[in-house]
Formats: sequence, structure tokens, C-alpha cells
Amino acid sequence: MTEAPKFLRPVTAHAADIGKAVTFGPDKPLKLDCGRTLSPFTIAYMTYGALNEAKSNAVLVCHALTGDQFVASDHPITGKPGWWSTMVGPGKPIDTDRFFVICANVIGGCMGSTGPAEIDPGTGKPFGLSFPLVTIRDMVRSQAMLLDALGIDHLLAVIGGSMGGMQALQWAASYPERVRAVIPIACAAYHSAQNIAFHEVGRQAIMADPDWRGGEYQLSGTTPAKGLAVARMAAHITYLSETALQRKFGRNLQNRDALSFQFAPDFQIESYLHHQGASFVDRFDANSYLYITRAMDYFDLAEENGGQLANAFKVSNTRFCIISFTSDWLFPTADNKEVAHALNAVAANVSFVEIKTDKGHDAFLLEEPEMFAIVRGFLNAVAAAQVI
Amino acid sequence: MTEAPKFLRPVTAHAADIGKAVTFGPDKPLKLDCGRTLSPFTIAYMTYGALNEAKSNAVLVCHALTGDQFVASDHPITGKPGWWSTMVGPGKPIDTDRFFVICANVIGGCMGSTGPAEIDPGTGKPFGLSFPLVTIRDMVRSQAMLLDALGIDHLLAVIGGSMGGMQALQWAASYPERVRAVIPIACAAYHSAQNIAFHEVGRQAIMADPDWRGGEYQLSGTTPAKGLAVARMAAHITYLSETALQRKFGRNLQNRDALSFQFAPDFQIESYLHHQGASFVDRFDANSYLYITRAMDYFDLAEENGGQLANAFKVSNTRFCIISFTSDWLFPTADNKEVAHALNAVAANVSFVEIKTDKGHDAFLLEEPEMFAIVRGFLNAVAAAQVI
Repeated sequence: MTEAPKFLRPVTAHAADIGKAVTFGPDKPLKLDCGRTLSPFTIAYMTYGALNEAKSNAVLVCHALTGDQFVASDHPITGKPGWWSTMVGPGKPIDTDRFFVICANVIGGCMGSTGPAEIDPGTGKPFGLSFPLVTIRDMVRSQAMLLDALGIDHLLAVIGGSMGGMQALQWAASYPERVRAVIPIACAAYHSAQNIAFHEVGRQAIMADPDWRGGEYQLSGTTPAKGLAVARMAAHITYLSETALQRKFGRNLQNRDALSFQFAPDFQIESYLHHQGASFVDRFDANSYLYITRAMDYFDLAEENGGQLANAFKVSNTRFCIISFTSDWLFPTADNKEVAHALNAVAANVSFVEIKTDKGHDAFLLEEPEMFAIVRGFLNAVAAAQVI
Repeated sequence: MTEAPKFLRPVTAHAADIGKAVTFGPDKPLKLDCGRTLSPFTIAYMTYGALNEAKSNAVLVCHALTGDQFVASDHPITGKPGWWSTMVGPGKPIDTDRFFVICANVIGGCMGSTGPAEIDPGTGKPFGLSFPLVTIRDMVRSQAMLLDALGIDHLLAVIGGSMGGMQALQWAASYPERVRAVIPIACAAYHSAQNIAFHEVGRQAIMADPDWRGGEYQLSGTTPAKGLAVARMAAHITYLSETALQRKFGRNLQNRDALSFQFAPDFQIESYLHHQGASFVDRFDANSYLYITRAMDYFDLAEENGGQLANAFKVSNTRFCIISFTSDWLFPTADNKEVAHALNAVAANVSFVEIKTDKGHDAFLLEEPEMFAIVRGFLNAVAAAQVI
């Protein structure tokens, strides 16, 4: 077949753009928590730096809800710098002159890893809602298979913020023998009721859009852009802090001297949100948004360990460095601290740092010198301590 | 005309249901802040208790965004008890055995006062988006006209929570000579960037619904139910606190023992939100929601007083009792306190109380014995001090 299928989504990761990829054939199915099996499946990923001979310098970076594998290189759709290019690169806190950095698009995502927008080889049509629900543990399981394919037994570290932090925790729980250190930032051991609530609002906004078409929008050449934009706008508010919003936007008007007494955006904060919504729609698949938010909702590391969070880590020799931010109300310090307490309960090697900032949850993606210094110092210490 | 117009909205307040109403004719136009004039217009209201001979026992209750005049009597659509029936009634903190309580549906509302869903006499069709934007000051201005019509010169007190509190503050600023005491609860002197942001998400959800039809849904017999439900769900989260959500719902599943691995509601919090969205759609007009949220966004008592909040109250002999709640993140204590500070700056008679509760913004509508005691005590003191 030389022609592209007609029902490819408008927001698509072209094969040439997604970086590297490994496709796992029928001999290597992905067994999912839902009981179903995904096979074949592809994991798209990027690497930065070089793997050393001892294969002991690999660092896995896990991305958040709307992130992707382009952690330190330009995004193929937006052209913007990698989402953590302040953190990862030559001479950066995660120094690619020293470490081999791997970042994979999560299963269920929309940047080349198998997800609801990809073609189901069984039907020749996009999966849509026939794609199985995936969990954070499934994401991590597929990452472990990617490491197997790359011939990497051990990770020096797993690091991530938000959903990336959930994956880092899951790595320590699922594969304690494969990871020397984890750095979960701005996350929690389970998704709270309020966070589930915000996600459900986003999903309802998408599913309320008639262009969503029961998830089969690719077949009709539509895309639920309005619903997805509303979902993104609502979520975006939760990534910031009231203080930062007030400082940055306050009640400033957008390109006008007086209130318009109309419903068009009067306030800068409104224009900013509209921009966030519109630009998101250009780079993200709506069904992927449904699946990945659901994966976060389902995350509960205590529940999958008999109700005791400490049980998740009881066989762990992994070192932990947990980082939270004072103004993060999506994953407040208390939630991060709960993980530290569970680790303390099993006498794990854990350090916990709360960073003072008014930038909210988004702080983990922003210029936070204290976070950079901590990550750099912790990684150096872990690398120095390791027996190669 | 005996037949009802075909384009009346599905969610309608029938003439028989709205309680009392005053229609102001062409001789009494409502001059709006936007520069336009509304005439004729109707204010629907309810009263409880009896006006004394001196006309000195009137208490005006102002409702919040989605409230109405049915403060202490059953709602004509839902059949539920009045929204503040714990606060207002015989022997209650606002004791209708002593006080004459008035509560009016705000201009722009949808329970009988003139709003976007009502028929524009100029065209014979519903106003829709041709209805002028109204402000909190416009709402208060129309309430003052209602009092004129009822022959009431002075109010013993104006009380309200959230947008009702904004109106109470506006009363003190606009008509200091007509109000002896105001009790603004869980509010602020201006709407913050974060609050504008949440409102804009709600408006975008409504306007994204194709059944909204540019605001002319009544003409086509549709209603943007899905968009309005999403707006309500998002807003509802902001009315609660994370602590209360976690305590009440946590990660409890709804009528199931295990995760479904589907997108239907698994968690109780999701079912709860769905219910909130669905029941709201049955009683509220979508365009009214746009107008009233916009009125709140526009509220800035400092800005309309030369940028100095204290100027709003400098000629005031009114007594103030400001109440906030510790877990209210929509109108945090700091915002309420800012009003108290401005009042202190003009040596006003002000008391400020922060009530400890985990019920969030919604606390003002709930069983909060401390709030009841404060309101009862303050009103009694004001009534006792007044020279009749």
C-alpha cells in the first residue's frame, strides 16, 4: 500500500518525525493490566548521549500527560525546544556528556507509540475506543521491554514529573532490581478525588463534542478540537498557581483600554487560555488524552500492594529523591511526602525536598535552579556510588 | 396572545412559579454600566416575614451565581427546599419572625427577572446574546429600584455569599445611606485571574456546544445541555475542597468492586459530578450562565473607585461583618481580609471572622453552626442599635 490511509488523524506523527522506534512482534506481546494483550505494538523513543561500555549510565526520563519523547530536541510538530531541554543536555543537570538518556512516548500516546490513533492491524482502521485501557504499570512494562530490546539491564536512574513521577515510582515498585535511583517530582502514589474530577471534566468536554463521533473521528475526517481545547484549558489552570496567575495576568486587559461588555476575551488570562487550548489541539490526539488521563486516574500504588503503600517498596534497594513544590495544588507537598513516609517505613534510602516557588505544578517544567541543583547533585552521587 | 411562543426555553420559569414580580415600565428604565438601557424590565422576587410599620426590619438576601429568589421556600422546578433555608426562616439566624426578608432574582438571571432567555419586547423573540452585559452594580441598581417600588428606604442589612457577597459589598459602596449593615460571606472585592479563568472554561464549554447555536438555541428548540453540564462540573469542583472531596469520595468506586477499564464512571466522584451537571441543566439557562459569570468577572470594586478599594467605603457609616472559610480556595480568606483592611483604612465599623471548615467555598450554603451564630448575633446587635 503506497497511499496513506484516508482516516489518518490531522494531528499525526509522521513516521519520519517520531525519532527512533521499536516494534514488538507477535512473539513479544504487551500483557496489560486490563487482561488484554497488545500485539504487535511500537514504542517510539529518543536517546541523547552515548551508552557507556558497561551500560551503566542509562537514565530513563518519563514524560507527563501531554509530553512525549522529545525531551531535549525540537518538537517535530511545534518546532519548539524539547520540553525539558533545560534539564537534559550537554552540561545540563541530566548531563548527556555523561549519561545516556532515553525517553519513550508512553503506550496509549500519540507520538508514534501505539495508541488509539494508530491503525489496528486487525481491522486496518484506527483503534479509537477499541484500544485497550492502559495503566501506568503498562507504560512502565512496555518501557522495560524497550530496555530489553536496547540491551540495557539496569538504569542508573528513572526521573519524571507529574505522570512521569508516577512512572518513576512504578519503576521502583515493579522493577526494583533494575533501577538504582528514582527521582519522582511533583507526583503522588495515587490520583486524588479532585484530580480525577478535573480529568473527568476534560473527558466529558471531549466526548460532548459531536466531532468526537464516539471516538471514531478519524474515520470521518473530523477532530473534536473544541472539546479538546476546553479540556486543555481546564487542565491548564490546575498546572499553575493562583498567585502566579494573579502576578502574571491579574485583571490586565488584552489589547484594550476598557472592558468590551462582550463575550470575546477581555482579559489577558482569557487570551492566554485560548492560546493554550488552540495550540494543544494542533499537537495532541483527543482519544490519547482520554486514555492517558484514565491511566493517571487508575494509578494507586498502595491499592496494587494490598492497600499498603510501604509494601510497594519493601524489597527496594533503590535510592529515592522526591521533590515537591510549595504552590503545587495538583500534587501538593503532602501527597509527595506520603511517598517519602512509606519509604521511611521500609527504611529505604530516601531524600525529600520541597522547593519554594509560586509557579505551581508546572514548576517541574520551568526554570527552577534549586530543582536543577538537586537533580544534578543526586545523579552525580548515585553515579559515584555505583559499582561499575 | 394566548398561545405560548414556540421558542420559550425548555428550562423556563413559568409566570405562576416565579413568586412576586415588579415590572418597571418605560418611565423607569434600568441604566446599565455598559451604557445601554434596559426598559421595560422585570424583577422577580420573594419575601418572607412581615415589614414592620417603621419599615426598619428589611433584610435583603443576595443570591450567588446559580441561585435565585427561592432562598427559604421550595424551588418551583426542583421541588427542593430553598437554597438557604437553614439560614432564613422562623427562628433561624435571619429570623423571619423578626425580619422582613427580600430576595430578588438578579437581572440577567433565569427565574423571572429579565434576562437573556426572556422575550425582547422589541423583537418578540428571546434576547439571547442581544441582551446587554450586566454588572454586579447593575444588579444592585435594579434591587434598589425594587426597594423603591416596595416603599422601603432603608435596609437593616444586606447579606450574601460568593456573588451574593459581591452584591452586599456593592450595596455598601453604591448606597451607603440606605444600608445599615452588610454581611459579605466568602467573596472578594474583585474577581481573580484564576476565577476568571475557570469561568472562561465554562463559557467556552457552553459556546462549543453546537446546540448553543450562537446563543439562539431557543429559536431552534435546542439547549446546549452537554456544554452547560461540563461548565457546571468544572465549576462545582471549585466550590469544594480537596480535603472534603478526598474524605467524601476518595477513590471509592461507584456500584462496582473493581475498575471497569472503560470510560464510564468508575469512581464515585465521577458519578457525583455527572449528577451535578445533569441536574443543573434542568434548572438553569445557558445564556444566563454566560451573563452572570461575566458579571462576576467584571467585578472590581477598587477599579471603579479610582484603583483604591478604601475609596469605595469612605463615606460609609455601614457596619460590616465579613466571613470567610479556611478551605475556600475560590475566595480565599486573604481576599476577604483585603476588604476588611480597606474598611479599616477608612475607620469603618468592621468585624472579620474566618471559620475553620474543610467544606470549601460551598460552606456558606451548608450547615456551619459558627456562621449561623455569627449572623444571628450580628443582626441582633444591628437591630438593637438602630434608632427606629
